[in-house]
Amino acid sequence: MTEVVDRSAAKGHAPVTAPSLVPGSAQPAVDVHALGEQLLGKWAAVRLQARDLAARPELHKTEGLTHTDHRARVSGQLQYLVDNGAVHRAFPSALGGSDDHGGNIAGFEELVVADPSLQIKAGVQWGLFGSAVMHLGTGEHHAKWLPGIMSLEIPGCFAMTETGHGSDVASIATTATYDPATAEFVVHTPFRAAWKDYIGNAAIDGLGAVVFAQLITRGVNHGVHAFYVDLRDPETRDFLPGIGGEDDGIKGGLNGIDNGRLHFTHVRIPRTNLLNRYGDVAADGTYSSPIASPGRRFFTMLGTLVQGRVSLDGAAVAASKVALKAAIHYATERRQFNASSHTDEEVLLDYQRHQRRLFTRLATTYAAGFAHEQLLQKFDDVFSGAHDTDEDRQDLETLAAALKPLSTWHALDTLQECREACGGAGFLIENRFASLRADLDVYATFEGDNTVLLQLVAKRLLADYAREFRSVDFGVLARYVVGQATGAAIHRTGLRQVAQFVADNGSVQKAAIALRDEESQRALLTDRVQTMVAEAGAALKGSNRLSHEKGAALFNRHQNELIDAAQAHAELLQWEAFTDALRDVTDPGTRAVLTWLRDLFGLSLIETNLSWYLMNGRLSMQRGRTVGEYINRLLVKIRPHALDLVDAFGYGEDHVRAAIATGAEKTRQDEARAHFRSQRASGQSPVDEKVLIARTAAGRTK
Amino acid sequence: MTEVVDRSAAKGHAPVTAPSLVPGSAQPAVDVHALGEQLLGKWAAVRLQARDLAARPELHKTEGLTHTDHRARVSGQLQYLVDNGAVHRAFPSALGGSDDHGGNIAGFEELVVADPSLQIKAGVQWGLFGSAVMHLGTGEHHAKWLPGIMSLEIPGCFAMTETGHGSDVASIATTATYDPATAEFVVHTPFRAAWKDYIGNAAIDGLGAVVFAQLITRGVNHGVHAFYVDLRDPETRDFLPGIGGEDDGIKGGLNGIDNGRLHFTHVRIPRTNLLNRYGDVAADGTYSSPIASPGRRFFTMLGTLVQGRVSLDGAAVAASKVALKAAIHYATERRQFNASSHTDEEVLLDYQRHQRRLFTRLATTYAAGFAHEQLLQKFDDVFSGAHDTDEDRQDLETLAAALKPLSTWHALDTLQECREACGGAGFLIENRFASLRADLDVYATFEGDNTVLLQLVAKRLLADYAREFRSVDFGVLARYVVGQATGAAIHRTGLRQVAQFVADNGSVQKAAIALRDEESQRALLTDRVQTMVAEAGAALKGSNRLSHEKGAALFNRHQNELIDAAQAHAELLQWEAFTDALRDVTDPGTRAVLTWLRDLFGLSLIETNLSWYLMNGRLSMQRGRTVGEYINRLLVKIRPHALDLVDAFGYGEDHVRAAIATGAEKTRQDEARAHFRSQRASGQSPVDEKVLIARTAAGRTK
Repeated sequence: MTEVVDRSAAKGHAPVTAPSLVPGSAQPAVDVHALGEQLLGKWAAVRLQARDLAARPELHKTEGLTHTDHRARVSGQLQYLVDNGAVHRAFPSALGGSDDHGGNIAGFEELVVADPSLQIKAGVQWGLFGSAVMHLGTGEHHAKWLPGIMSLEIPGCFAMTETGHGSDVASIATTATYDPATAEFVVHTPFRAAWKDYIGNAAIDGLGAVVFAQLITRGVNHGVHAFYVDLRDPETRDFLPGIGGEDDGIKGGLNGIDNGRLHFTHVRIPRTNLLNRYGDVAADGTYSSPIASPGRRFFTMLGTLVQGRVSLDGAAVAASKVALKAAIHYATERRQFNASSHTDEEVLLDYQRHQRRLFTRLATTYAAGFAHEQLLQKFDDVFSGAHDTDEDRQDLETLAAALKPLSTWHALDTLQECREACGGAGFLIENRFASLRADLDVYATFEGDNTVLLQLVAKRLLADYAREFRSVDFGVLARYVVGQATGAAIHRTGLRQVAQFVADNGSVQKAAIALRDEESQRALLTDRVQTMVAEAGAALKGSNRLSHEKGAALFNRHQNELIDAAQAHAELLQWEAFTDALRDVTDPGTRAVLTWLRDLFGLSLIETNLSWYLMNGRLSMQRGRTVGEYINRLLVKIRPHALDLVDAFGYGEDHVRAAIATGAEKTRQDEARAHFRSQRASGQSPVDEKVLIARTAAGRTK
Repeated sequence: MTEVVDRSAAKGHAPVTAPSLVPGSAQPAVDVHALGEQLLGKWAAVRLQARDLAARPELHKTEGLTHTDHRARVSGQLQYLVDNGAVHRAFPSALGGSDDHGGNIAGFEELVVADPSLQIKAGVQWGLFGSAVMHLGTGEHHAKWLPGIMSLEIPGCFAMTETGHGSDVASIATTATYDPATAEFVVHTPFRAAWKDYIGNAAIDGLGAVVFAQLITRGVNHGVHAFYVDLRDPETRDFLPGIGGEDDGIKGGLNGIDNGRLHFTHVRIPRTNLLNRYGDVAADGTYSSPIASPGRRFFTMLGTLVQGRVSLDGAAVAASKVALKAAIHYATERRQFNASSHTDEEVLLDYQRHQRRLFTRLATTYAAGFAHEQLLQKFDDVFSGAHDTDEDRQDLETLAAALKPLSTWHALDTLQECREACGGAGFLIENRFASLRADLDVYATFEGDNTVLLQLVAKRLLADYAREFRSVDFGVLARYVVGQATGAAIHRTGLRQVAQFVADNGSVQKAAIALRDEESQRALLTDRVQTMVAEAGAALKGSNRLSHEKGAALFNRHQNELIDAAQAHAELLQWEAFTDALRDVTDPGTRAVLTWLRDLFGLSLIETNLSWYLMNGRLSMQRGRTVGEYINRLLVKIRPHALDLVDAFGYGEDHVRAAIATGAEKTRQDEARAHFRSQRASGQSPVDEKVLIARTAAGRTK
């Protein structure tokens, strides 16, 4: 990318006090290349390969197409991915894949910068449809269907969600009833609410589908299982007998995907079309499963599909990076209002509010990116089999459920703030903020509604907390909670064991001394999660002894604070990931700057929740007042490094593709300033009426 | 609208304690009709007429059109408005208008529910282009151009913004230099950044334009003035000689409008094309103006265009109402998860978090609506000439600058929250949230960037504050600020005189006693604005004695808190408008429910800014902890009235046009529940495996 920005002036804003982390230097500098390498993470090679693809015009979103044309374009792009060997990494080596689960997601999520429709449609085909066959099916299924799924000979659907049930998958109403007379399952949609809905590939392209339905055999409902169902005649593309559907039509975004509805009227499929890894039905109708508990079985089956959440988390971070790169570049070139000089206007990024708007989101993007890398590693550990105990799987699911909501909401917030920060230009589709925002909107809903996911996290936190206190009596718990409420300090280390703590009355007072101190931030953020969970736990204590209805009502009265606690937990995970990543930074300048950015992230969290820290006696009124001021000082320190920090993301012009981030604005500004300079030099500038009035007034007073 | 919702169950949630406002009744009920009348406001008849139009399919947005087709459709719709006499109310009676300024805006803003592109394109034609000719031009101009503008014979542009300057209009670079030899102005674009940009009607339809340019005559620049310029040949539709342009292309929304760029190369127009109400040039080149000060003249000219902000404020409120009506209706029908029963799932609106998400925004929508009505009245007072002193005009501008940012941001937030609260269905364009949100996105930018507007408000607050303290010495001011910081209580009455206060040490302590008390809320909200302004004023004291550069730097170091202060001021205005409106409610049940909603609004503001109240000693830690809890109790009280509160907005199905708000969801839920009921009754339900396991286990223990 051409260097279009004059950074010399900006670099002049050297921080007044050099951080102790950079011995002997008052001018820390970011090693953009080394930081870029670190940000690429473990699957750097795959990521670079995917970015190379994402930079190609063939894969770019064409704006302004009708949804019909956009769908056709994206369908074609899927074949391009196949032809370029980009989408088979997770599949078995024996079938031409490479058994590389982490790398697969790393590659997929980068596609978002080409066109989010492409990322999601590819995700439907290989990440959902193909994965379901792979993870829920067994050898015969793999041999029969995976090659066609991989080659795109069988475009397919992941038919789980119904019009009536999205978040509560266990309650879907499609049935698959076993008929031993013919050794077939009868797949049936009993009423309108049980239509499959919002299903990618359903409106047009899908020839096959993995259909989730209640498995009924011998009069017993064994819960949700997955069945392979042929949908359309490959020749005529018509629905097969008994199958019908509808187009979901135009959506708020992602219009390159043909989402639709499906329904089944007593559709018969062979017994062997049950994807039977976790549950099988013998020819005589006998049900068997390696997992005895129906509940555990259900969650195990769903758990194999966690990768959708993982890749949305990564894609959300990628989109945030692209947006910030464009908006921050523009803000270093765009000038408006001559606040500090009569002739030169201010660069937008020198305004405090503009820094607040963009740098806090830059800090969160770094935090979310580092957290995503940890999630991806955890995912790979589990799916590669390196670490795949039940607890590992549960941790992975909780981590994904915690991070995906924050990163997808963050992406929407960042895209919008960047849009607004670029004014009217930000609204032009050529600058992509609005387009990306529209496409990413539903990331907050699919693969798990963000609010529902956070509630799952809260329940896990409560369960951990309850386990921790299982052996103590209620009196201990009550005293603990009372201690919390009166401001006793809690210290905790480690990410996941929220209920583990040591009572250390000194730590918070110490924390109050220096908010920029890493351990103080950790103590404050950790303490908040712990205390919120403990308070909720105490409030809900005994709810399992209440009637079903009263227990639910009690839980509902605390729903809001539970979701807040889960969010606080997820923010802590992001903060810890950022802090972990700092340890891997060897260049002292880079580490100094990234530490400011981490501090900005941590202090922004504390500022957002400042009332909690004050009300609970964790910060004094005096200390609280310094938070905003310290954030403002960090903004000034980060200002000279803003371009380096977005350049380190490693996205080029072919990824950013925003007219305002090409240097065009600087060219225009330079031309305008040269015009006025030459006019002044020639003595031909018209005199400003105000100046004339001032001169006249001065003449009168003489 | 058909009654599709069973409210009887919801009504069962009667508040435990009846409000004292409803003597002898424990079951307050909302008089939906009377409340609806009140919400229609002063221009009810015009509003109803406009809603009648907005309900017609001819004016509805057709989703999925290319921007080319959408533009053509909206152009046609403008003619439909003319034919239906909907858009001439503000124009002079002599020309077929009705000199009705408030009514005109009331009618315009309702068009947003048909298609925001229609509202804005109509706004460009009559609200900007036509208004500029009317307010900046004089009799001859009116006679010459207004008839054609009104009839749409002359579609036209309001060419103010340039690529290089949007917020800082005073710095636009297009020039209009007077040539006494030919008695012409020469309109010229000196460089690329001076191209007019984002101009509605510029890409295709505009035949004429009001072009804003620096007026230069006899070597003096008299600042920005407006000139009438013919753009295109009415026959060929080609640009006239010297004029060129470009299409802005596809945008993030509002694609029914043909925004574009314009540039002028020494284009000569008659001297009399200067819209000369506030500044004129005689044939010999002598400049004259009824307003001596160039600064005041500039702001007076711009001030005539405040109606754009007023109508965006109203349209944002209307869009929020439509979205909340759809989302709240759906939430009373949609069920998910059977938390409190084995057979019936919960209605979404019974979840605490869902109530938090929707009711807080409902409360803000009411507040913004009442505030808008006050703004509209103020606007009408000024423009009708009833109250149009300089101070009235300045107050109007400050009020518009304060309210428009909050309501437009609120609309985007509400549309998004409603979208998410309706899950995947919310993302389908048939439910309109995503479509409205995309169209309203740029409302945060045009007619004044929201951040820049709030900064203007902050400057006005500082100026008022400085005037108040003009006569006191610095010692008094310092003591005042110190007093504030240590928690001395301040009481203020009235909306606009921020610096007026009485030291009343008792009031805040009293406020802490009952947060639901109206005067306590007022005291807390008012005190925050005052204190923030006073602190900023003290911090900036003496900045005018610094160098230009140092003064700007000092201001910039406080920019963030100044903008926050302006927002707090605007929120107070909304709260006061809501509280004023309560006085007009005669029905006791309605008043009780609306008072809860006002309390929810007030307490949500206090909760959002709770850290400020704690740090500044305005609320104790103990009191602070009760805010969230009290909000949760208000949600439960409001729950039974939620449908009434959105029905009172008065929008019918033809305005809401959301598939999920038609009762279809209830039909589906009823069908599903009937299916399971009849299955259970017939004894043909498959047994749940979990139940079977439980039975077996029970059998074993017997």
